[in-house]
Amino acid sequence: MSAPVIAVVGGGQLARMMAPAAGELGVHLRVLVEAPGSSAAQVVTDAPVGAATDEAAIRDLIAPADGRARADVLTFEHEHVPNDLLTDLIAHGTPVRPAPHALVQAQDKIVMRRRLTELGAPCPRWAPLPVDPEQGHATLAAFLAEVGGQAVVKTSRGGYDGKGVRIVSSADEAADWLAAAAAGGPQLLVEEKVPFTRELAVLVARRPSGEVRTWPVVESIQRDGVCSEVIAPAPDLTDEEADAARTAAVAIAEGLDVTGVLAVEMFEVVDGAAGAAGADGRPARRVLVNELAMRPHNSGHWTIDGSVTSQFEQHLRAVLDLPLGDTSPTAPWTVMANVLGSSLPALTDALPDVLGTFPDARVNLYGKDVRPGRKLAHVNVSGQDLDEVRRRALGAAALLRGEALPENPTTTETKA
Amino acid sequence: MSAPVIAVVGGGQLARMMAPAAGELGVHLRVLVEAPGSSAAQVVTDAPVGAATDEAAIRDLIAPADGRARADVLTFEHEHVPNDLLTDLIAHGTPVRPAPHALVQAQDKIVMRRRLTELGAPCPRWAPLPVDPEQGHATLAAFLAEVGGQAVVKTSRGGYDGKGVRIVSSADEAADWLAAAAAGGPQLLVEEKVPFTRELAVLVARRPSGEVRTWPVVESIQRDGVCSEVIAPAPDLTDEEADAARTAAVAIAEGLDVTGVLAVEMFEVVDGAAGAAGADGRPARRVLVNELAMRPHNSGHWTIDGSVTSQFEQHLRAVLDLPLGDTSPTAPWTVMANVLGSSLPALTDALPDVLGTFPDARVNLYGKDVRPGRKLAHVNVSGQDLDEVRRRALGAAALLRGEALPENPTTTETKA
Repeated sequence: MSAPVIAVVGGGQLARMMAPAAGELGVHLRVLVEAPGSSAAQVVTDAPVGAATDEAAIRDLIAPADGRARADVLTFEHEHVPNDLLTDLIAHGTPVRPAPHALVQAQDKIVMRRRLTELGAPCPRWAPLPVDPEQGHATLAAFLAEVGGQAVVKTSRGGYDGKGVRIVSSADEAADWLAAAAAGGPQLLVEEKVPFTRELAVLVARRPSGEVRTWPVVESIQRDGVCSEVIAPAPDLTDEEADAARTAAVAIAEGLDVTGVLAVEMFEVVDGAAGAAGADGRPARRVLVNELAMRPHNSGHWTIDGSVTSQFEQHLRAVLDLPLGDTSPTAPWTVMANVLGSSLPALTDALPDVLGTFPDARVNLYGKDVRPGRKLAHVNVSGQDLDEVRRRALGAAALLRGEALPENPTTTETKA
Repeated sequence: MSAPVIAVVGGGQLARMMAPAAGELGVHLRVLVEAPGSSAAQVVTDAPVGAATDEAAIRDLIAPADGRARADVLTFEHEHVPNDLLTDLIAHGTPVRPAPHALVQAQDKIVMRRRLTELGAPCPRWAPLPVDPEQGHATLAAFLAEVGGQAVVKTSRGGYDGKGVRIVSSADEAADWLAAAAAGGPQLLVEEKVPFTRELAVLVARRPSGEVRTWPVVESIQRDGVCSEVIAPAPDLTDEEADAARTAAVAIAEGLDVTGVLAVEMFEVVDGAAGAAGADGRPARRVLVNELAMRPHNSGHWTIDGSVTSQFEQHLRAVLDLPLGDTSPTAPWTVMANVLGSSLPALTDALPDVLGTFPDARVNLYGKDVRPGRKLAHVNVSGQDLDEVRRRALGAAALLRGEALPENPTTTETKA
């Protein structure tokens, strides 16, 4: 039986969660893991150890010297693979999905903003900061004067989960980063601090032959710059608003020629009362594109239990250029709650309590050692009543963190 | 992180389908597989090779000589493990679930019928056939005279998927089996040939501390003695009839002290028009217990996509004595269609066609080489309209068998 072989760079929970989908499709997964026993290595039989930047390791992942089957395609669970190598692999006949000309948009925020602006995608106001520190300072000061108040300075590369992002009120507050950029560190850009009401995300899957599918727009709730909860679908969104967000995400996937799963993180902005209001007097809502990720994404973990086709299966289908699956939700509401850190020695210690208290909770542990703030697990709960679904998902996540059950967790959330 | 370790005997598709659930729960699975590359070995990282009857292999599965963590519990994907060994393992402190005093009821049909009769479970009329061939012949002849017409002779041990079962009209037709039994072959029993309208199945999960959960009653459609399709829930069953079937199954799980998942296969019998009819004039339906399986079962594959908790996750929870999960269906109807054999060299060859034609089909390939009649895969489809759901599930299974799409597959089925 000649099963298709997918090579994946990165051995964290995203690669781990591809494994069940690969098994069901009869696809062989080969994952380059950072260390033996990593999250993915626990559940993938073919998991060589190597760094994502190790050219020999990646070449062996695709065409193993020991005679294991050659990979049909190379894909990723993160964006930290050298693009020169990927370009060379493509030139020598290995499909790389997403391809480096797309992937660079998720690696470099200046490249991304420039291209999204060209495509007419809705973006916050932004500007690249010149590498010369004086020019950079002047550009930032001018930008702050234009937007008034605060702005967000970002490193163009290397940032994630709130890292590489700083809110400033004056150009002086970025002096150290400007100096670092001038000294060869990552380039900087500045973006307006968007007065958003909440964060939304749209997940898109696209395959090389062009088929595209999106899932319902979700609301993503962040704490300290890290996703902590996702509500699917995003409450209180009209069909028109949801369609607009999905259309924008599809245009990005097509415009950037993304293959595989693309997560488009967005800000929701409510136009002022003086602005255009809908026929019902409700202020119109717009979205602005915040970040892109070209892989399965935390905002899509709800699809494992809440959608006919999960983002993980869809990613595998897309990179193999197989027809994409139905993205319909399987319940009116699904809420995903992340487990970031825990006071327990091991999350499995909480299983008797969490499974007993919430028999409908879909618990997904990543097999990682507990460290403060680390993404260790998530819980999905689906149902008819959003408040109850949230209460249960957040309660289950609290038990996995070793905390007592919140009395009414949903009221502690900041909701639009 | 000290993950619980579950040792499983048997490396077929049932163990394979435990792997995703184990990963999600953060449980380490160690599977004794018949051969390298077996169905389960493709997706389980800890899969030593050995026979289910090899005492040393089973002892090493539980307490590996090389220092891998000791298993917390031993369970099975089939019933062919020597009970003496299991009893000894328990005596030396390893929980075995289900325990041999329960497992024997799924290994030996005479033991099972005797015990079910004691428990008052609804059974077909039956009799054990004495080992002495003349006495056996006489007993069978008397039984045939009593029931009139035909009866079903079965080997007490070793039968499955229609094997070890023969329909006879006279005792002479079992002469060879009677001789084989007298020569030390498996003992025989005879059961009345139940004039059933259809076959039903109830899946029960029970954990050592006593918690029990059942899934909705399903209809199981057999071809040539092998399950080919399952409809969940069974159509045209009143709540009272379904409750009666579930209650009978729970009584069996409790009466036999089963731990883990138990599948109770049943015959549905419609009492004659002269018999008791319900208030609506509809003839009353009863169930008779046909077979037992103490493990995840083909009649429960629909739960992977059609229930909040799958039978595979539930089995792992049950054998670890963890609280059981919600067994509610996630859609009004789910139909599972088996793929038994294929004209294709590899089932993955059908993926472009089957995924493109049925984007909502949940395809599950077992990674097995194609052989005639072999269980190679199944497909689940869920939805609102039963006819459409069946059409799609059966169509997807046909494509995986390398057949053309049936024009209207559901009309070719024998339905009650």
